[in-house]
Amino acid sequence: MVDIYVLPLKYKEFKKIINFMIRGLHVETKTILIKNAIIIGDEIKKGSLITENDKISEIDYSNSSLNHADEVIDAEGKVLSPGLVNTHTHLSMSLMRGLADDMPLDTWLNDHIWPVEANLDGEHCYAGAMLACAEMIRSGTTCFNDMYFFMDHVADAADKAGIRGTLSHGMIDLGDEEKRKAEFKETQRIIDKCHETADGRIKVAFGPHSPYTCSRELLEGVRKEADKQGLRIHIHVSETQKEVEDVMEASGKRPFEYLDEIGLLGSDVLAAHAVWLDEDEMDIIKERGVALSHNPASNMKLASGVSPVSKLLEKGICMSLGTDGAASNNNLDLLEEMKLAALLQKVTTLDPTAMPAQKVFDMATRGGAAALGLEDEIGTIEVGKKADLILVDMKSSSLTPLRNPISHLVYSANGADVDTVICNGEMLMKNRELLTINEVEVISRAEEASEDLLSKL
Amino acid sequence: MVDIYVLPLKYKEFKKIINFMIRGLHVETKTILIKNAIIIGDEIKKGSLITENDKISEIDYSNSSLNHADEVIDAEGKVLSPGLVNTHTHLSMSLMRGLADDMPLDTWLNDHIWPVEANLDGEHCYAGAMLACAEMIRSGTTCFNDMYFFMDHVADAADKAGIRGTLSHGMIDLGDEEKRKAEFKETQRIIDKCHETADGRIKVAFGPHSPYTCSRELLEGVRKEADKQGLRIHIHVSETQKEVEDVMEASGKRPFEYLDEIGLLGSDVLAAHAVWLDEDEMDIIKERGVALSHNPASNMKLASGVSPVSKLLEKGICMSLGTDGAASNNNLDLLEEMKLAALLQKVTTLDPTAMPAQKVFDMATRGGAAALGLEDEIGTIEVGKKADLILVDMKSSSLTPLRNPISHLVYSANGADVDTVICNGEMLMKNRELLTINEVEVISRAEEASEDLLSKL
Repeated sequence: MVDIYVLPLKYKEFKKIINFMIRGLHVETKTILIKNAIIIGDEIKKGSLITENDKISEIDYSNSSLNHADEVIDAEGKVLSPGLVNTHTHLSMSLMRGLADDMPLDTWLNDHIWPVEANLDGEHCYAGAMLACAEMIRSGTTCFNDMYFFMDHVADAADKAGIRGTLSHGMIDLGDEEKRKAEFKETQRIIDKCHETADGRIKVAFGPHSPYTCSRELLEGVRKEADKQGLRIHIHVSETQKEVEDVMEASGKRPFEYLDEIGLLGSDVLAAHAVWLDEDEMDIIKERGVALSHNPASNMKLASGVSPVSKLLEKGICMSLGTDGAASNNNLDLLEEMKLAALLQKVTTLDPTAMPAQKVFDMATRGGAAALGLEDEIGTIEVGKKADLILVDMKSSSLTPLRNPISHLVYSANGADVDTVICNGEMLMKNRELLTINEVEVISRAEEASEDLLSKL
Repeated sequence: MVDIYVLPLKYKEFKKIINFMIRGLHVETKTILIKNAIIIGDEIKKGSLITENDKISEIDYSNSSLNHADEVIDAEGKVLSPGLVNTHTHLSMSLMRGLADDMPLDTWLNDHIWPVEANLDGEHCYAGAMLACAEMIRSGTTCFNDMYFFMDHVADAADKAGIRGTLSHGMIDLGDEEKRKAEFKETQRIIDKCHETADGRIKVAFGPHSPYTCSRELLEGVRKEADKQGLRIHIHVSETQKEVEDVMEASGKRPFEYLDEIGLLGSDVLAAHAVWLDEDEMDIIKERGVALSHNPASNMKLASGVSPVSKLLEKGICMSLGTDGAASNNNLDLLEEMKLAALLQKVTTLDPTAMPAQKVFDMATRGGAAALGLEDEIGTIEVGKKADLILVDMKSSSLTPLRNPISHLVYSANGADVDTVICNGEMLMKNRELLTINEVEVISRAEEASEDLLSKL
């Protein structure tokens, strides 16, 4: 009998009802009290913080009034930071970590990555995404921006792991109309199935791969649909010099000029990489309010080049940080990425004052939030914001003496110093123990998926 | 009565006798068996290894004959690598970690580092060195090359920690004859007191600071004494462009040409940094057999520049890796340093094949050993070599899937993945527990020493 009422509903609506019912059963609020932490808020000061359900409900620097909660964490010697935001990655590519290194981009893609990707299915993508979720949580990332395939399986992994993410199906048509239609269909399927699921943790964006793999028609269609559905756009732009040359040859314009002419650019667009830019393009990015995701490790490893991040920051462009996929990094550690970002700007500008620690930390937190349109929800520690929080243990030999927590986070720490992770008010890791993920099982499943993919070559 | 026999002996000779007596009490051999490890030897293969006292006594890839030892480690899922060699650092500067970042070298030195160093004493240096030893062991370094002050205190820390190191008193005379004499006196004191102590783990080298802080007379004196006493030389050369200009203005020659003219260069010299080199200097380095220590993190953070490492490797120059001090890095993690070294070469040459993982791994192991003249003792896993070994745990989400251990060590891992450390046949860390160091005490003492230094400003 139940079928009569349930089946006509879309999956999303069905899930909403179920979630509502489940919530109805747990009317009481859930609170976590974090005591004695060095809080990276407006100032950096020792204090206490309370979360209530999914939000930060109270911050107290006097260390007096806050005393009880469902769960109490004594964070003595630990720094409480906003969860880190990884604004460009391909989670499931963690299955291809270390598959091929130290080779030209063409060889890497043509002979190694694409042949493996040709055999990918949803199960592989789930296994890879779950592995990536474990790695991200372990290294303090609470929110990611992913572009890949079988994104409903990625959503499933992120939902189970308890992490926050924006997902986009990577659309590539190479001028083929049939393929274009199929890409819009798959994108719509993912939107309908996954957008605003997992208590709002999971959102969906349009993911036109790049100006050199997508036709003008596809890009125009994306802008139209994004406006209509109120969704954001995630795209790769100007990662390599060759790509810029190709776009110029095809369109007579540099990539950002071309995208602007089409009308794709806007404050709802996040462009990844943005390595090769001229002054006019930087001005276009600024004028249109486009956000950028800087991916130093991947740009360095693939020898793509160095994004002019110091200049972009000077212009007031919204800058964020991404790891790219683990196949070209080869990890998803945003603490390491912060150090790389700062050091790379300093050495290439020969200016040690370029990219100070605070700026790169802002890119990995509030910058990332803004780049995903989530600045009202995450990215800073403020009452009323979502409880996406991490504790970093400073009581270690590599983080002694402790004077400036921001300096330590950017220059001395790595992901393994992250002790506790909370996302949307849920504890995902406590004292380095993952609470939502069976890591042994996830590792074994990822090894199997990776073996399976290699066996099909 | 004992005094009559003991006092006329030098401290070194006295220590030798005591050591001999202690060894006499422990005639039995001490063995460690490491089973099921992926051994990075001539090949990379699963097998077992036995250490006997301070040496590797047996390696068996058939996994059959080796069964018993005083201590047995099951290393399933772990990679057994030679201990890493950090060829340029200033251990005690870990007290200045995070003290000052993101500023020009002049400001950093004049306003922050030198004022602190002016108040340093042996106690501070011991506290800083002990902290650094804890950090190095935790991140897989078993051998270091240090230049700083109060080096007998550093020797004391390294001795207690069980790590291997070459120490040099940093000599600076700035042309002052009195200061020069004092520097030779202090160097000789350290040689007499510390060279070949701690079962041969600790050696002493001459440490003329650099061609721009040492007079010609000092450098000539160092060469003479080094030859006479059979000791090596550790020096900073061509770290910054300004330094090259200063040396050229003073001597009419570029730094390596100037040092060659003086006769300082030889196969017993390790030059740190070597960032700004012309073709002729590279040829001189090659001809004289000088070894170099590449310090990418420090060179990037201080915006010193990029050493032409790919070219230097092509020329067959002995290349090794160093972290420099924690004040300009800001950690001592050689696994992170390997990644930085590879990535920096790739992006600055725009060649993804530059500095492949194996080459940078070699720099951090056998290259480091050769740079310190220890190639017959350490740097590779071979029967008869010293048992300086580390186990890296590959059963983690950030190191899955495991295909190429060298790729993982260079690109995916960080110091926190090191599980077990053996130096000179002694276990220094097991399952991430430090065995020779009371870390809580070391951290607290380092915090106090650092506070004390700041209070004196």
